[in-house]
Amino acid sequence: MKENTKSPQTAKARPKAPAKSPRGTASHDAPYDTVAIVGAGLIGGSIGLALRERGLARHVIGIGRRAESLKLALDRGAVSRVTQNLAEGVADAQLIVVCTPVESIVEHVTAAAAACRAGALITDAGSTKRQIVNALSGRMPRGVRFVGGHPLAGGEQSGPLAARADLLIGKTVVLTPTSANTSADRRDAATFWLALGANVIEMSAAAHDRAVATTSHLPHLVAAAMAAATPQKLLPLAAGGWQDTTRVAAGDVDLWMQILRTNRADVLKSLGEFGKVVASFDSALRKNDDKKLAQLLRQAKRIRDAVGN
Amino acid sequence: MKENTKSPQTAKARPKAPAKSPRGTASHDAPYDTVAIVGAGLIGGSIGLALRERGLARHVIGIGRRAESLKLALDRGAVSRVTQNLAEGVADAQLIVVCTPVESIVEHVTAAAAACRAGALITDAGSTKRQIVNALSGRMPRGVRFVGGHPLAGGEQSGPLAARADLLIGKTVVLTPTSANTSADRRDAATFWLALGANVIEMSAAAHDRAVATTSHLPHLVAAAMAAATPQKLLPLAAGGWQDTTRVAAGDVDLWMQILRTNRADVLKSLGEFGKVVASFDSALRKNDDKKLAQLLRQAKRIRDAVGN
Repeated sequence: MKENTKSPQTAKARPKAPAKSPRGTASHDAPYDTVAIVGAGLIGGSIGLALRERGLARHVIGIGRRAESLKLALDRGAVSRVTQNLAEGVADAQLIVVCTPVESIVEHVTAAAAACRAGALITDAGSTKRQIVNALSGRMPRGVRFVGGHPLAGGEQSGPLAARADLLIGKTVVLTPTSANTSADRRDAATFWLALGANVIEMSAAAHDRAVATTSHLPHLVAAAMAAATPQKLLPLAAGGWQDTTRVAAGDVDLWMQILRTNRADVLKSLGEFGKVVASFDSALRKNDDKKLAQLLRQAKRIRDAVGN
Repeated sequence: MKENTKSPQTAKARPKAPAKSPRGTASHDAPYDTVAIVGAGLIGGSIGLALRERGLARHVIGIGRRAESLKLALDRGAVSRVTQNLAEGVADAQLIVVCTPVESIVEHVTAAAAACRAGALITDAGSTKRQIVNALSGRMPRGVRFVGGHPLAGGEQSGPLAARADLLIGKTVVLTPTSANTSADRRDAATFWLALGANVIEMSAAAHDRAVATTSHLPHLVAAAMAAATPQKLLPLAAGGWQDTTRVAAGDVDLWMQILRTNRADVLKSLGEFGKVVASFDSALRKNDDKKLAQLLRQAKRIRDAVGN
């Protein structure tokens, strides 16, 4: 870690303990002096809460465009200081985590890389990785490291009010390092997410996007299609099964547009695979083929039971 | 309610207070002297627990085929006496509720009707209603009433161990009376389910089956297809969205086979409607038609937000 040369801005911004935090005040031997969070919504806010509750950073800088969101993050104790000036906000950070909507991540990583100190590590929380990793490939200034990340956490809620210090505990974070990364980069990125309570796995950005097309983006489309296929007048008969199956369709439309747009080909491929299975169910029902229908339901149950909860 | 002519069997079977019940011992002025529950699984067991906890019945007779299940229901305090002999079990009941898998309900209602007292009311908890109501039409012996019911409760769990006294609280029970029913039949059936904490709505069996094809059976197929379309090796990347969307696919395969089989035409129709919406999503994604994609996602979110949780 770099020597501690604090700017006047951060020097005067001593972290206040968040009201609910048992360990809110980071000790002077915190692993990070300054962490900058670009986009303090559900994920960014949760990272901030976890960093401060766990005493992992002396300063947590919240960076964003909207003053109201920043104020909420500050009021919740998710960050110790806020700014709308990205360059200023990242200037003293050893670690910068970009948690903005997926289509603005490249712009924010690029801006952060241009303004941060040599040796700083940048990671992100984007739900798709290929476009981001490709766009940033070879564009980091000398001494600045970027390792793409995707915490598999969140859900249908968004914004700093939904943030929770325990959001990442036990969750999986996928890191997508490239050949441009050293083993130290990979270790440092993993160390950050592990410190927040997450599990870390590494894969290529392409493999990640292919996988989450099926495990995350397809469920969103399926839930949305199920909800959209339900006439309003039948909603009084929508019980637990309908509620579970459609829950994620309540997610933020703009965020999901960006996710689907940046993973279009893989999502279409997953949708095609899903369509084949739906056609098998339809055919088994139509033909009174109980053996086939039972086989499909058993296969589904086996896979679902393997995950639990 | 009929005069209280107790048989030796029921007379010797005084209810014991369930261990966890604050009001476990039914008072002598309980609304029902004897309620018989055919099939003491998740729904039947929950009805028994609620009846006893609320002091609604002096005797709750659990009737079933499998001695182990009956013993579990008795041990949990869901019933006060058990028997594998349906005719004997229903002999003294004013109210009989048949909670067996949907394809055996007609048989059990018919057997109960032949063995119960005149004036007894029979209701059921079958997830599909048209086949049941049609099969029983005109087949009740003189003085025995049947009003079909469907509590929209339950989920992926089953069996008496999953039963809970509060399962029906705030849930909707659909009753499907026919022209053979008097207003007293309808009132008595509604009174029973309302006493368990449920809300009651009435509709025709055909309208019920058409509606739940979309709100319950389609979600099950969609969840199962989504789970079956997920390769095992991707499960480590299955997070909250996948878990919610597929949850009901863990349901009992045989119970769901019976539900789907007895509502085949309506389920196929709902599946067709769902397929059209999925095709719209596919087309919007394929054509980069952001306007259409956003419109579909907004429509889905609006419908999902209307339900909550």
